[in-house]
Amino acid sequence: MHTSQPLNLNLLPAMTAQTKLYEGKAKIIYPTDNPEILLAVFKDDATAFNAQKRGSIQNKGTVNNIISSKIFQQLEARGVKTHFIESPAPNQMRIKAVKILPLEVVVRNIAAGSLCQQTGLPLGTVLKMPLVEFYYKNDQLGDPLLTRDRILLMELATPEQVDSIIHLALQINEFLKEFFQGCGITLVDFKLEFGLDSQQQLLLADEISPDTCRLWDVSAGDDPNRRVLDKDRFRRDLGNVEDAYQEVLTRVLEAVEKG
Amino acid sequence: MHTSQPLNLNLLPAMTAQTKLYEGKAKIIYPTDNPEILLAVFKDDATAFNAQKRGSIQNKGTVNNIISSKIFQQLEARGVKTHFIESPAPNQMRIKAVKILPLEVVVRNIAAGSLCQQTGLPLGTVLKMPLVEFYYKNDQLGDPLLTRDRILLMELATPEQVDSIIHLALQINEFLKEFFQGCGITLVDFKLEFGLDSQQQLLLADEISPDTCRLWDVSAGDDPNRRVLDKDRFRRDLGNVEDAYQEVLTRVLEAVEKG
Repeated sequence: MHTSQPLNLNLLPAMTAQTKLYEGKAKIIYPTDNPEILLAVFKDDATAFNAQKRGSIQNKGTVNNIISSKIFQQLEARGVKTHFIESPAPNQMRIKAVKILPLEVVVRNIAAGSLCQQTGLPLGTVLKMPLVEFYYKNDQLGDPLLTRDRILLMELATPEQVDSIIHLALQINEFLKEFFQGCGITLVDFKLEFGLDSQQQLLLADEISPDTCRLWDVSAGDDPNRRVLDKDRFRRDLGNVEDAYQEVLTRVLEAVEKG
Repeated sequence: MHTSQPLNLNLLPAMTAQTKLYEGKAKIIYPTDNPEILLAVFKDDATAFNAQKRGSIQNKGTVNNIISSKIFQQLEARGVKTHFIESPAPNQMRIKAVKILPLEVVVRNIAAGSLCQQTGLPLGTVLKMPLVEFYYKNDQLGDPLLTRDRILLMELATPEQVDSIIHLALQINEFLKEFFQGCGITLVDFKLEFGLDSQQQLLLADEISPDTCRLWDVSAGDDPNRRVLDKDRFRRDLGNVEDAYQEVLTRVLEAVEKG
């Protein structure tokens, strides 16, 4: 995993202040010599509720990068095009430069979070079919739910892109559900982001990690607190946040090793 | 308009306390001798922002009932099935009993209200195509936006009903846009409700009035306050609320008379 061109971590702070291309809530993006390639450095910073709640989760950057890198590699092997190139250091990912579509694509297998709040469906309701939803990636507006018509009206994506994203999101869900099941984890829901490369090709971008998935430990049964292995531990102050992230990493690495 | 079986208004208060079937924010529904027929009495009570703001608009019940009755008759003449039977008194409508679908169907021609808040589109943006949107009629949840998938997941309507509603909403919009244009009024957006009669037939229900439409006076040009002829005068404390409602009534009656 941490192969070619190891980046000297000690040099990074000095470099970053000069060259940082973009700093998000969970990652800093740096340019590289190649304009088609960027470096994403995963941070330990944690935010929730549209950044109203802020904190830090020890080792989160490393855990999330390793989990994401492993999952992106698995997806690539199954024909899903992602922005992943390689992981040059435990908390870093070399990625293809893409223009991120301002859409948060959420796939839901079980009702949780805003779906429950907005529909009244009880937490934990198993959905008859996976639900692919779009939210406007816009902190100022609070990432509101989008309908297909609103996406087209606002020209956030073309109809063809929306259709491709739905198709890809369902395909990714099928893989992830089974992959996490093999880890003794129920995949409740997850958020994806997509971007367009210089050839206008749609690539899966961002990350897939306990920050962006709801993951429930099968062995904890219906215990609504104990089962949580994702950022809801931070959101809901459930404690043992680091342990949960580490547990997911351990199980993911085991599952990848087993093949 | 105020034909057959005039209802003695003086007797109503005594009757209502006993028999009222349902009281909403803008109407009280009474049963009649015929279980297939109900009586809607339009109130002067005004609410906004999910009933956080409360007040009263003088004569609103009468104005809204007369406007709605006239519009329902016009729509019926164009083949749109509605719950309207007749208006036995100025603030009353005899209606077919329906089971109201818990959907607020909003048709938008120009961006205003929650569409602007949730998308960032500037107020007054003319939409390339009319937008038909669904909201969950649920005060407790704050009437949240629905996607088609959520409607089906929550079983609020069947796919066929959703398709029929979109078709009807667009048809109604075409008529109303032209009708209000003939009144010197721009139809910005409006809310519809639909119900199912005992034969599971889809009927347009509720009302179409300055309470449920955004109506802008063409002669006021772009003046964002002066042009408003609808409940936004109440929501935004613009004053002259009664005058605006009365003005819409006068113009609607003139337009109907002219044919």
